[in-house]
Amino acid sequence: MGEMKKASSLADLGADADIGKKIFKKIHHAVPGTPTKRHTKITIVGVGNVGMAIAQTILTQDIAEELALVDTNSDKLQGEQLDLQHAAAFLPRVQIRADTDYAITAQSNLCIITAGARQNPGESRLDLLQRNLNIFRSIVPKLVEKSPGCLLLVVSNPVDVLTYITWKLSGFPPNRVIGSGTNLDSSRFRFMLADYLDVNAQDVQAYMVGEHGDSSVALWSSISVGGVPILSFVTNKSEEFEQQVLENIRKKVVHSAYEVIRLKGYTSWAVGYSVANLARSLLRDQRKIHPVSLLSKGFYGIGDEVEVFLSLPAMLGRSGVLSVAQITLTDEEKKRLQNSAKTLWEIQQQLNI
Amino acid sequence: MGEMKKASSLADLGADADIGKKIFKKIHHAVPGTPTKRHTKITIVGVGNVGMAIAQTILTQDIAEELALVDTNSDKLQGEQLDLQHAAAFLPRVQIRADTDYAITAQSNLCIITAGARQNPGESRLDLLQRNLNIFRSIVPKLVEKSPGCLLLVVSNPVDVLTYITWKLSGFPPNRVIGSGTNLDSSRFRFMLADYLDVNAQDVQAYMVGEHGDSSVALWSSISVGGVPILSFVTNKSEEFEQQVLENIRKKVVHSAYEVIRLKGYTSWAVGYSVANLARSLLRDQRKIHPVSLLSKGFYGIGDEVEVFLSLPAMLGRSGVLSVAQITLTDEEKKRLQNSAKTLWEIQQQLNI
Amino acid sequence: MGEMKKASSLADLGADADIGKKIFKKIHHAVPGTPTKRHTKITIVGVGNVGMAIAQTILTQDIAEELALVDTNSDKLQGEQLDLQHAAAFLPRVQIRADTDYAITAQSNLCIITAGARQNPGESRLDLLQRNLNIFRSIVPKLVEKSPGCLLLVVSNPVDVLTYITWKLSGFPPNRVIGSGTNLDSSRFRFMLADYLDVNAQDVQAYMVGEHGDSSVALWSSISVGGVPILSFVTNKSEEFEQQVLENIRKKVVHSAYEVIRLKGYTSWAVGYSVANLARSLLRDQRKIHPVSLLSKGFYGIGDEVEVFLSLPAMLGRSGVLSVAQITLTDEEKKRLQNSAKTLWEIQQQLNI
Amino acid sequence: MGEMKKASSLADLGADADIGKKIFKKIHHAVPGTPTKRHTKITIVGVGNVGMAIAQTILTQDIAEELALVDTNSDKLQGEQLDLQHAAAFLPRVQIRADTDYAITAQSNLCIITAGARQNPGESRLDLLQRNLNIFRSIVPKLVEKSPGCLLLVVSNPVDVLTYITWKLSGFPPNRVIGSGTNLDSSRFRFMLADYLDVNAQDVQAYMVGEHGDSSVALWSSISVGGVPILSFVTNKSEEFEQQVLENIRKKVVHSAYEVIRLKGYTSWAVGYSVANLARSLLRDQRKIHPVSLLSKGFYGIGDEVEVFLSLPAMLGRSGVLSVAQITLTDEEKKRLQNSAKTLWEIQQQLNI
Repeated sequence: MGEMKKASSLADLGADADIGKKIFKKIHHAVPGTPTKRHTKITIVGVGNVGMAIAQTILTQDIAEELALVDTNSDKLQGEQLDLQHAAAFLPRVQIRADTDYAITAQSNLCIITAGARQNPGESRLDLLQRNLNIFRSIVPKLVEKSPGCLLLVVSNPVDVLTYITWKLSGFPPNRVIGSGTNLDSSRFRFMLADYLDVNAQDVQAYMVGEHGDSSVALWSSISVGGVPILSFVTNKSEEFEQQVLENIRKKVVHSAYEVIRLKGYTSWAVGYSVANLARSLLRDQRKIHPVSLLSKGFYGIGDEVEVFLSLPAMLGRSGVLSVAQITLTDEEKKRLQNSAKTLWEIQQQLNI
Repeated sequence: MGEMKKASSLADLGADADIGKKIFKKIHHAVPGTPTKRHTKITIVGVGNVGMAIAQTILTQDIAEELALVDTNSDKLQGEQLDLQHAAAFLPRVQIRADTDYAITAQSNLCIITAGARQNPGESRLDLLQRNLNIFRSIVPKLVEKSPGCLLLVVSNPVDVLTYITWKLSGFPPNRVIGSGTNLDSSRFRFMLADYLDVNAQDVQAYMVGEHGDSSVALWSSISVGGVPILSFVTNKSEEFEQQVLENIRKKVVHSAYEVIRLKGYTSWAVGYSVANLARSLLRDQRKIHPVSLLSKGFYGIGDEVEVFLSLPAMLGRSGVLSVAQITLTDEEKKRLQNSAKTLWEIQQQLNI
Repeated sequence: MGEMKKASSLADLGADADIGKKIFKKIHHAVPGTPTKRHTKITIVGVGNVGMAIAQTILTQDIAEELALVDTNSDKLQGEQLDLQHAAAFLPRVQIRADTDYAITAQSNLCIITAGARQNPGESRLDLLQRNLNIFRSIVPKLVEKSPGCLLLVVSNPVDVLTYITWKLSGFPPNRVIGSGTNLDSSRFRFMLADYLDVNAQDVQAYMVGEHGDSSVALWSSISVGGVPILSFVTNKSEEFEQQVLENIRKKVVHSAYEVIRLKGYTSWAVGYSVANLARSLLRDQRKIHPVSLLSKGFYGIGDEVEVFLSLPAMLGRSGVLSVAQITLTDEEKKRLQNSAKTLWEIQQQLNI
Repeated sequence: MGEMKKASSLADLGADADIGKKIFKKIHHAVPGTPTKRHTKITIVGVGNVGMAIAQTILTQDIAEELALVDTNSDKLQGEQLDLQHAAAFLPRVQIRADTDYAITAQSNLCIITAGARQNPGESRLDLLQRNLNIFRSIVPKLVEKSPGCLLLVVSNPVDVLTYITWKLSGFPPNRVIGSGTNLDSSRFRFMLADYLDVNAQDVQAYMVGEHGDSSVALWSSISVGGVPILSFVTNKSEEFEQQVLENIRKKVVHSAYEVIRLKGYTSWAVGYSVANLARSLLRDQRKIHPVSLLSKGFYGIGDEVEVFLSLPAMLGRSGVLSVAQITLTDEEKKRLQNSAKTLWEIQQQLNI
């Protein structure tokens, strides 16, 4: 359908559409020359609440010079594009494109997928997954065709299986396919601990790993506050009461996504910041460590034949996943990771990919 | 109802609520001392799409150290608060409060009002205004009581009359009551011109002034691109065709808010950036010039007895509106401003304030 | 001597000095009204390489709306002021004052002291300290008189004794007198570890504490990389060779300040970023944890009668030092802290404060 | 001579130099995969006060992910590199290289030249230029060889002739060779006007164009304050006194660089911000308008045979100079531009390029 941007912003101008160039030529003379290397470009597939919170945070934080939005709902696409563009005077210049046609995504450095189906009443988890698989069949190959060198970042849920599906459909090496995984769960965990102790959340180190959702694993031994391991105080003194408090916090983290959905109908802001944070580490080559969903076979006792994506703390840079941290886990924690891997693997084998 | 924050984030912890302090005391010893001056605090009334886009942009742009959200919908309030708080690890520390009780707004430096009623089918504009007046009666006096030294910034529509109402209800001097007015219209104008000419919108100088909405006035003579007045080229050469293009752009600016609402159902992002931009100029004492709705009596031939708020380019700083720019308007432009003033004044006299 | 700013920037204008206001009145009409709360103000005493690197970083990072520079060298002061002001078009608006008279520092929120004497050939450390004490006698009481509610941050060396002197001269409670201490040493430590491991330095947790300089203590047990305690790998496996590598890194940290001075003649950039970082945590009430020099009596076995300032990890906010972290130290580490305390205490008792 | 970075930061480690990788392998497992597109890289030639102020501002403003510093003074280079690196924990990760060998500059997107000789006592301007030409012969071909697709930005003085020399030596098309020119003069102009009127300098539009230095031309007709052309008030009313004030301001702008040098010995901060500002517009493809030194033949009546670089307002983006603004100049202003062009052309013809 071509590019909607001009059509949308100058729809009434008809034949006048070339006048802009005519006027500009009067006030500026072009300087001929050879072009140089291109800028940073991000594509976001899906402009619902999550996709748009990501788009807006990326704009505000000045991470890319070009943003391409793709969705199947043409009206929503145009409305969101215009609403972002209207803020141009308050932001660094970013070229914002929006279309139902993937042609606008060409040569992206990073493609973020937020699209996906919601569970219908009575629908089984497997049926839902199969429907999402079909949706991803209409997304991933087009992204890969237009941007064969990009990184793929999956946000849609269930994120771990959909990241696996994206990996299979893309044919990419595993370092270039990442799921947002428990990056947000870990942020919620850090906020709750920081709120509880009244410190800055950036001073709290704490990871949730494994499967995004109910089965995620809180790594108690990794928690420190400003460099002070918090458990050393709690466990050394066998204060069971306090351990109970920590377990309550963990439960709250797991349930807090549900709580936000119950209260406001959906989640958006925190996932927007979380994914923009990953985008920055990837595109600005930050070599920072984030818990994200990655191909986990062979790590922490997960068998080499089990091709599942689970969240583990990993170093991210311009080439995607660079390395995976080797944390000392308890036997219980390892077992829970391995169980998640097994469950996901069984589900995946029932899909027709 | 007290403060919901602790209740919300640690609802399940019951008697454990003091344990956080106990644990913290083990890893940190308090240093006694005298407190110093407090930080910057912003209150936002209304957590709909507009209020939340403002809140999120203020958070991302690091404008305040405390943010208080007030609304009548307790669930929505809690949901939005949690969703913002969950991003704490990705942002500078900001204390986010949310409550239906205005107690949490105490000692704000800036209060932003986005609440208001929408037009019911068949409802007259005057009836709608009277309903909004009643809503503002339940908001403004409480804000003023809790923060007698604050600045008041009105975003709700119709913004010019509601800013007048806020001024009357507050008893504040006029420099401390501001409407967001045509700040966003001007940004849309600048984007459309920049998009048309393919330049950076921050290099385009252009104002929409007067009444926010259909009757706003585009100041053609003030338009320049990178310091080059654009009309000098167009008018000198009597190119009527190009003038028609410019008039089409003006119409598109006026209608673009309707277009966004038609396409996505509401506007949010651009108004969020626009208001955050005003908040920064005010609280960081930037002495920058913005077109905002202010008490306009006596300016541009508007009579001294006509107490209306209209948008004019004004310098903003820590004390609110510092001065109003004296631009050379055409007789036609002046007349349109004066007509808007007269219309608003007649409407206001029918209200029971 | 009055304020030099106008004199400097408009020196040739003579009687024309009021014309600016006359012109401005023609293009802007003032809006009368009541002023509101004032903005954030920082004073820097000493405009040498260190003071100016701090000033420039604070400007770039948008931490204050007013900056006052004080020095005894009037020419240097004016030159630095003009050089910073000439960048106004590229920065948020900050009012920059510079004068030899402390009147311009009035109502600062934070005063940073970088002034001090350098060691003369053959001069004993004690004689140098006594000279610096005399310099501080001409600084601290004036700062306190003009800004009785400010925070005091000492950067001059030897920082620990000079922070103690500042505390005594100010009469302030200890939470409001801070030395930059080992904040920079810790940053160097984190860089060296990050460089060695090729990770992001922000993911490396590591503290140097105690006396700033040769006797500082590296807390090996607090080192973690992305939440993984690094020593667990090294010590568990008794790899002495690697321990030697770590000890070499520690030595390099201690000597790196000397190395920079040998190579370029002075240190500036890193201390600028380090102090701007402290300023942000303090003024934006970040409740972040930094190793800074604070009144350490009673902590880690330092006697209550020993009034010395040493660096310990502390939480900083709008009221200065809020609390001190309780880290598990080895006996060796504790002993070194206590020895430093004793040495400093003995030196301080020989000063005539 | 190889890369000094490792040698410098880990000089004492000897055979231990591979241990870092060994340790890291224990805590992180590498993920194999294909690399993706590389990041943004800037080279700065010359690490004097100007080069380092540029380097530090680029670091703080997060414009590039890799920074290469080149100079002939190896000690100074290492000292500046270490001093910047020590701040790693306070900044986004940037890889900082420093060497006397241009190998480290390979694949830069932008190369900034600040090196150059200073005038010796009694040395003629032409002799100085010939010396600088020889210096540039040792710089430009190496930069071009290592980064054939880069943009070249010349800051050294006399900037206009040295930009011409760089263009000739590089063999680049003119859009990719830029001199910092009057970008800083214009900023000083905007500050002085803003200071005089007490407004935000970012709201002041004003250009200095032509030759950088004493002969630069202030474009009075382009001055506006918040969109209000300031001269309309002054000239309409024939207030000669005020015109004199404006002329005094112009003189102060021209002399302010000398004033800063007299007062502090050199200029640094403002040029640092100015050049970082250009770097951002170029590398982030901002399409913003800046007055910079560019190949001016054919513009404003300068003959097509006169190959000189002069500053004109130009739009800058990822490909360098995109277009040149067509401003209405007075005959006097045009004549001064043409005279500067003629003078520079005569000088250039005496050089043995």
